Amino acid sequence: MHIAVLAGDGIGQEIMVEALRVMEALGLPDLRLDYADVGGVAYKNHGHPLPPETLDLVMAADAVLFGAVGDPDCDDLERHLRPEQAVLGLRKEMETFANLRPAKAFAGLENLSALKPDVAGAIDLLILRELTGDIYFGEKGRRTTDAGLREGYDIMAYDEEEIGRIAHVAFKAAQGRRKKLCSVDKANVLQTSVLWRTVVNEVAADYPDVELNHMYVDNAAMQLVRNPGQFDVMLTGNIFGDILSDQASMCVGSIGLLASASLGTGTKGLYEPIHGSAPDIAGQGIANPSAMILSAAMMLRHSFGMEDQALCIEQAVADVLEQGILGHDLGGSASTREIGDAIVAQLA
Amino acid sequence: MHIAVLAGDGIGQEIMVEALRVMEALGLPDLRLDYADVGGVAYKNHGHPLPPETLDLVMAADAVLFGAVGDPDCDDLERHLRPEQAVLGLRKEMETFANLRPAKAFAGLENLSALKPDVAGAIDLLILRELTGDIYFGEKGRRTTDAGLREGYDIMAYDEEEIGRIAHVAFKAAQGRRKKLCSVDKANVLQTSVLWRTVVNEVAADYPDVELNHMYVDNAAMQLVRNPGQFDVMLTGNIFGDILSDQASMCVGSIGLLASASLGTGTKGLYEPIHGSAPDIAGQGIANPSAMILSAAMMLRHSFGMEDQALCIEQAVADVLEQGILGHDLGGSASTREIGDAIVAQLA
Ligand SMILES: CC(C)[C@H](C(=O)O)[C@@H](O)C(=O)O
Ligand SMILES: CC(C)[C@H](C(=O)O)[C@@H](O)C(=O)O
Repeated sequence: MHIAVLAGDGIGQEIMVEALRVMEALGLPDLRLDYADVGGVAYKNHGHPLPPETLDLVMAADAVLFGAVGDPDCDDLERHLRPEQAVLGLRKEMETFANLRPAKAFAGLENLSALKPDVAGAIDLLILRELTGDIYFGEKGRRTTDAGLREGYDIMAYDEEEIGRIAHVAFKAAQGRRKKLCSVDKANVLQTSVLWRTVVNEVAADYPDVELNHMYVDNAAMQLVRNPGQFDVMLTGNIFGDILSDQASMCVGSIGLLASASLGTGTKGLYEPIHGSAPDIAGQGIANPSAMILSAAMMLRHSFGMEDQALCIEQAVADVLEQGILGHDLGGSASTREIGDAIVAQLA
Repeated sequence: MHIAVLAGDGIGQEIMVEALRVMEALGLPDLRLDYADVGGVAYKNHGHPLPPETLDLVMAADAVLFGAVGDPDCDDLERHLRPEQAVLGLRKEMETFANLRPAKAFAGLENLSALKPDVAGAIDLLILRELTGDIYFGEKGRRTTDAGLREGYDIMAYDEEEIGRIAHVAFKAAQGRRKKLCSVDKANVLQTSVLWRTVVNEVAADYPDVELNHMYVDNAAMQLVRNPGQFDVMLTGNIFGDILSDQASMCVGSIGLLASASLGTGTKGLYEPIHGSAPDIAGQGIANPSAMILSAAMMLRHSFGMEDQALCIEQAVADVLEQGILGHDLGGSASTREIGDAIVAQLA
C-alpha cells in the first residue's frame, strides 16, 4: 500500500495527522507513506502549486490522500500558480474522471442543516460528477469581437466515450444502492446535454435493474432544496456537478463530515474532504478531522478493496459523534486531536 | 398602454384571466389588450411555438404579459418546435437582457419552505440574471472527434458590453435596496468569468455607495442554502442564473407566489410567473394566480412607471394571504377564481 500524502494548506496539515493516526491504528500491512507538498505550500517551497516531484510521487503511488489547498497569500499570483490549479492538474494527470461524493445525514445531527430536520434527515445520496472534461478543460481564452470588444470564452464539450464511462460508474453505483439514477443536464438548451442524455440512455440498456430518470439542472437545484431525500445516485457533468454537489453537501449541514473520492479506470484514486483549507482557523488545532478520516476510509474501500476496514472507520466516526464528541464546526468544543483520539480509541 | 397577452399553455390560461381582472379593477386608462398564442398551443394552432403573428404583436406592444409554456403533447417534437423555444426566441427578439427575480419570504408563510422558518424568513433578495448571452446563445452543435466519436459542444462567451449593461442594471437595483451586490461567477476556472469579474469591477467605480463582492457559483449554491438572508442583489450570467434563481425561489418555499421581469434597454419588458404550465393541474381551476398577478404588478412598475398601482397590487396579494385565503399549493383550498376575487375585493 503505497500512499502519496499531500496535506496541502491551512487545516490540511492538522487533519491529515489524525487521518494517518487512524490508519496506523488499523495496523495495516505494508503501509508506505510518502509525503509531498501541494498548493500554496508547494508554491512557497518549490515555485509551483503542483511541482514535478509531487507529480512523480503521485504517479508512482497506489493512492493519494489529499488534505486541502488554498492560501490567501497566493491570491495575487498569476492564475496558473494558484493553489487550486494543483487540483485541476492532479485530476487531469491522474485521469480521475469520476468524482464520488456521498451526502448522508448523520443521525442526531439533522439539526445542523439549514433545512428542516425531517428534510435534512432523509438525505442519503451519492453525487457522481464527471471530473476531467466539460467546460473545465475545453479551449478557453480572451479574444476581440468584430466590434473591437474584449470577449471571454470557454468551450463546453463531451464526447460519447467520456459520457459513457462515467455513466457506467453511475449505474454500477446505483446497483449497489437503491437502484435509482437521476442524470442531470440542460438538454433543452445545450447540445452537449443532448448527447449526454442520448449516451446515458444507451448505457442504460446494460442496467435494466436501475431506474433512470433525467432532470434539468435548474430543476435539480430546486429539488435538492425541496426534497433531497428523493435522490439516490445523481449523475452530472463537471460544471453542474461542481454546483450541485456543493449544494447537496450544505443540505446535509455539516461539511466537516463529508468525504470524496476521485477515481479513474483502475483502482488508483485521490481522496479528500469536501471542505477547504479554512485559513481562518488553521494552526489552532480546532479543525474537525472527521471528513479527512472518512476520506481515508473511502481510500481503503476503493483503492485497496478493504471494505471491512472502511466500515470500521465509518462506524467509529459515527460512534464518536453519537457520544457527543463534537468539533467546533458542530457546536461542540472537541479539538482536532481529541476527535482523532476518540476515533482511534473507538477502533481499538 | 398596449399589452401583448400571451397566456400560453396549461394553467397559463386560467391564471392570466385573473391577472387581467385585477388590472381592470385598477381602472387603468387606455388599457389595450391584444391576445396571441405562444408555446404548445401556438404550435397546435399555427405550427410554431412562436409564430410570426405573435412576434409582430410582441414587437408592437409596450409590454408583454406571459403566462407559461410547456405541454407534454409536444415532448416528441423536434427541438426547434418545442414550447420552451418560444421563451428563448422572445428573449432574443425583444433583447431583454436583464431578468429580475425578486425572492422574498411572505410573512406567515415561512413554514412552507424546506428551510427552517428563521432561515427562510430572512430571504429578501433580487437575482439579476443575464438573459440573452452566455452558453445559451453561443455556437453549439454536434461534431465528430479525431477518434471518430460523437461529440456535443456549446460555446460560452460574454463580451464587455453584454457584461457592462447588466452590471449597470444590477448596481442601480442595489442602490434602490440595501446597497449590497454579490456577483457570481467561476473565475477560478472560466475565462468568461475572468472577464465578467473584470468588467463588474470596472462598472463598480460608478457606484461607490454599493458594496460589491464576488462569489464562486459553487459557494453561492451553498450559501443560498446555509444563509440566504445574507444576500441583497445577486448578479449572474445566464446559465448560473438559471440554476441559482430556481434554487433561491424554492428556498422561499412557494413558487406559486414569485414573479419575474425581463427587461431590455427601454421600458418594454416581458413579465411572467416563475412557475411553469403545470399540466397536471391545468383546467381544474385550482392554480394559484398570485405569481401571475404579481407579474402584472411588476409590469406596471417597470414598463409604465406606475409604482403606486404596483404597490397596491402587491399589498392586496399580501393581505389576502394574511387573511388565510390560500391556494392548494400553499395547503389551502381556495380556487383560482376565489383568490382572484379576494385580490380584486381587496383592491376596491
Ligand atoms: C477549486 C476548484 C477549481 C474546484 C472545482 O471547481 O472543481 C472546487 O470547487 C471543487 O469542487 O473541487
Ligand atoms: C425553458 C428554459 C429554456 C428556461 C431557461 O433555461 O432559461 C427556463 O428554465 C427559465 O429559467 O426561464
